[in-house]
Amino acid sequence: MAGGGGEGEKVKLLGVWDSPFVNRVQIVLNLKGICYEYVEEDLHNKGELLLTSNPVHKKVPVLLHNGKAIPESQVIVQYIDEAWSGTGPSVLPADPLQRATARFWAAFVDDKIGSSWFTILFARKTEEKMEAAARAISAMETFEGAFRDCSVAAGKPFFGGDGIGFVDVVLGSYLGWFLVIETMIGVKLMDAARTPELAAWAERFKMADAVKGVLPEDVDKVLEFLQTFLD
Amino acid sequence: MAGGGGEGEKVKLLGVWDSPFVNRVQIVLNLKGICYEYVEEDLHNKGELLLTSNPVHKKVPVLLHNGKAIPESQVIVQYIDEAWSGTGPSVLPADPLQRATARFWAAFVDDKIGSSWFTILFARKTEEKMEAAARAISAMETFEGAFRDCSVAAGKPFFGGDGIGFVDVVLGSYLGWFLVIETMIGVKLMDAARTPELAAWAERFKMADAVKGVLPEDVDKVLEFLQTFLD
Repeated sequence: MAGGGGEGEKVKLLGVWDSPFVNRVQIVLNLKGICYEYVEEDLHNKGELLLTSNPVHKKVPVLLHNGKAIPESQVIVQYIDEAWSGTGPSVLPADPLQRATARFWAAFVDDKIGSSWFTILFARKTEEKMEAAARAISAMETFEGAFRDCSVAAGKPFFGGDGIGFVDVVLGSYLGWFLVIETMIGVKLMDAARTPELAAWAERFKMADAVKGVLPEDVDKVLEFLQTFLD
Repeated sequence: MAGGGGEGEKVKLLGVWDSPFVNRVQIVLNLKGICYEYVEEDLHNKGELLLTSNPVHKKVPVLLHNGKAIPESQVIVQYIDEAWSGTGPSVLPADPLQRATARFWAAFVDDKIGSSWFTILFARKTEEKMEAAARAISAMETFEGAFRDCSVAAGKPFFGGDGIGFVDVVLGSYLGWFLVIETMIGVKLMDAARTPELAAWAERFKMADAVKGVLPEDVDKVLEFLQTFLD
């Protein structure tokens, strides 16, 4: 999907290959069929473009659309959906109540799963990592119930309905890391016995064309890269 | 503004009188001229309606619109803007880039100011409270720069432009608490010497019809109520 152009528009994504926050933006750009140039950032030596386009947080992802910078992954995903509203499928539903439900669960995922993910990676003490994993598992169980009520009960394969939507990309972007975490601390955050519907959903999500090749798959490579931030 | 009705629609807000998260929803309902029934919740003994309508977080605010429950203040504000898109002023701008900018700063405010507010209130150690206050002041200074660049430079009185918008209500909902915090720990989070544009903005915000009577003003009453959560 890399490569500039697309109706004369210039779209550039500043990212890091194994970041869930970057990966969800890549998936949404793919879903909507938007061509973009991908720029891999070196977080140990941040580039001038990253620093000037996201001076507040100095973090990836940043989307540059015709020179205008949009940082923060959930903001970017909603921006893409609104700026290219006529291109490809919608990521957020049209109905206000369904949009509110999607925003609620997207916030829930980053709040509960995202913060646990961060603690598991960077906490010094094993005990803190294990507590964070327990919180993530509890959140996954809550989310399993919501997914069952909202999607499975209506015969829909994704939280977004028939296709991948906002909540799907937000949760789905962590999937590559679940295997990394299992290798790190021996805990499965996604387990077919505990959350069977989400486990089946994860398989469908990973098979989607827009997702293939985006999520990190090589656990050793991820762990090796992570180590450079822990030294 | 209380009282049911409004084109046959039933709107109910579950809240607590001094919560910034509840207050911002009240301000937006007022701005758009939507009639609603306000239900004061007892957080020491949460009501059945709150528990069943927000089973995940069990927190206020919850908006009930024709029986459908929408929790989480930023989600509610965007829901109101979309569900009543033809009623009153828009809270989010129409342009995708401006919407992204508003969402970015709204998230920034709750992330930086909101988390500091919580720590100042509930941390046991004075040192932790003072560190949180310093973080909030630093965030206010960052935000002053953004406000100057986005609004003041364009001759606009509010972050939302000529009228109160998303970012205005999100930051403005903390204004009543700034005086409470000054009384608690002797630190001004909003100071005309440090952030002159925001200090002037705050005076304009508090004078708006939609805001009058919503924010808590009686410092002693707020402190007394807060104490019931600290005992």
